[in-house]
Amino acid sequence: MKRLRCVLAYDGTDFSGFQVQPDQVTVQGEIEAALNRVTGEDIQVFGSGRTDAGVHARGQVIHFDTSSNIPMDKWRFVLNNQLPDSIVIRTVEEVDASFHARFDVQVKEYRYCIDNTPVADVFRHRYADHVRFPLDVDAMQQAAHYLVGEHDFTSFCSAKTYVEDKVRTVYGVTVEKSGDEVWVTCRGNGFLYNMVRIIVGTLVEVGQGKRNPAELREILAACDREKAGKTAPAKGLTMWEVVY
Amino acid sequence: MKRLRCVLAYDGTDFSGFQVQPDQVTVQGEIEAALNRVTGEDIQVFGSGRTDAGVHARGQVIHFDTSSNIPMDKWRFVLNNQLPDSIVIRTVEEVDASFHARFDVQVKEYRYCIDNTPVADVFRHRYADHVRFPLDVDAMQQAAHYLVGEHDFTSFCSAKTYVEDKVRTVYGVTVEKSGDEVWVTCRGNGFLYNMVRIIVGTLVEVGQGKRNPAELREILAACDREKAGKTAPAKGLTMWEVVY
Repeated sequence: MKRLRCVLAYDGTDFSGFQVQPDQVTVQGEIEAALNRVTGEDIQVFGSGRTDAGVHARGQVIHFDTSSNIPMDKWRFVLNNQLPDSIVIRTVEEVDASFHARFDVQVKEYRYCIDNTPVADVFRHRYADHVRFPLDVDAMQQAAHYLVGEHDFTSFCSAKTYVEDKVRTVYGVTVEKSGDEVWVTCRGNGFLYNMVRIIVGTLVEVGQGKRNPAELREILAACDREKAGKTAPAKGLTMWEVVY
Repeated sequence: MKRLRCVLAYDGTDFSGFQVQPDQVTVQGEIEAALNRVTGEDIQVFGSGRTDAGVHARGQVIHFDTSSNIPMDKWRFVLNNQLPDSIVIRTVEEVDASFHARFDVQVKEYRYCIDNTPVADVFRHRYADHVRFPLDVDAMQQAAHYLVGEHDFTSFCSAKTYVEDKVRTVYGVTVEKSGDEVWVTCRGNGFLYNMVRIIVGTLVEVGQGKRNPAELREILAACDREKAGKTAPAKGLTMWEVVY
């Protein structure tokens, strides 16, 4: 028996999120089905965390245990061959049996893409949220600074969540213009349900001049989801990297 | 009554091609439905040509006639507001009543994208064909030269076509590497059914070393679809530009 760790990318458009759910097409479900076809084993996959329906990944990390004797240098090809085009295994490596894709996470990085042009780029419509009017990126970056550090992020968490402890540490939030796109990058030790999308939705309202950057401090302090902005659409969000 | 010309882009993934068909979701059908909602008129749209199911466009051109008094500078927004995210109107302008989007075409340019990496880019899987092993781009370009000029392109035309005259003039076929992608660009006065996709499929076989570049001359001369290569998948193809 050995433990393998994979880095994978997926186009979340057509999946009901990462986690297995009955009667739904999910990323985890597709990977487990592929592993079953390839090894004949009934393998459970552990991811670094869930992603919601429509959210993408460039660097999701999973681990699983297997007794298969598939050579290490064949695993990637064999798995990709069995997976739909919307999921790609980027790397496969053997790791110590103590490694755990969820419990050992040190840093997670998410990036959110906004297509900020008068007319949307049709080839980005699945991977970016379209905002027609030019955003004030400097104001967004100013606002973003207030989020850095250890805070109770209740205001930036879906009211539907069951997690007790809503304190997280955000290492950095940057807002950058790249051509016609505005990218929001969030790095932290973990994120609550919808947290990055609510951060982005709130920063967009700052970028549109509907809120002052300094309001972010008050929103955090209020610990009230109602005070923050809208939840930005899932399709603009990508799980970019997980660091162990 | 006035005649309007639009340049539009679309993601062909979810459409049964450009042309209206009963019980199918098509680009033309979506635009005609949007025009009907916006003007109350029953408007027929004329495109520069059809595109197959799954083929994309960056610069498809259409015209239509309308009596609507929507101001010219509002048309683009009003239409985009009524269209799905997978279709975007880029420009709208009034043209002379003698203009015809199909009959007045001078040059059409198609581009085909090949993702030429060992592991596919999951965010390009709808817009590029994935070829794992490195293609010999120089050999492909050599082969492409034989296609330029006025030829009978029967060998590069789906056997399912009803067109009598299979002579077309190709102004240029270029094969270029751009990062991990190989782009095939075809310019001509018109293309037969599946012609660009069969050209690309044949050039890929040259790039894989399965054919010599000089074979292209024999394939053309044979006027036999069986002599050419496979039809490359629709998803890599984009109608790039139409010149009048």
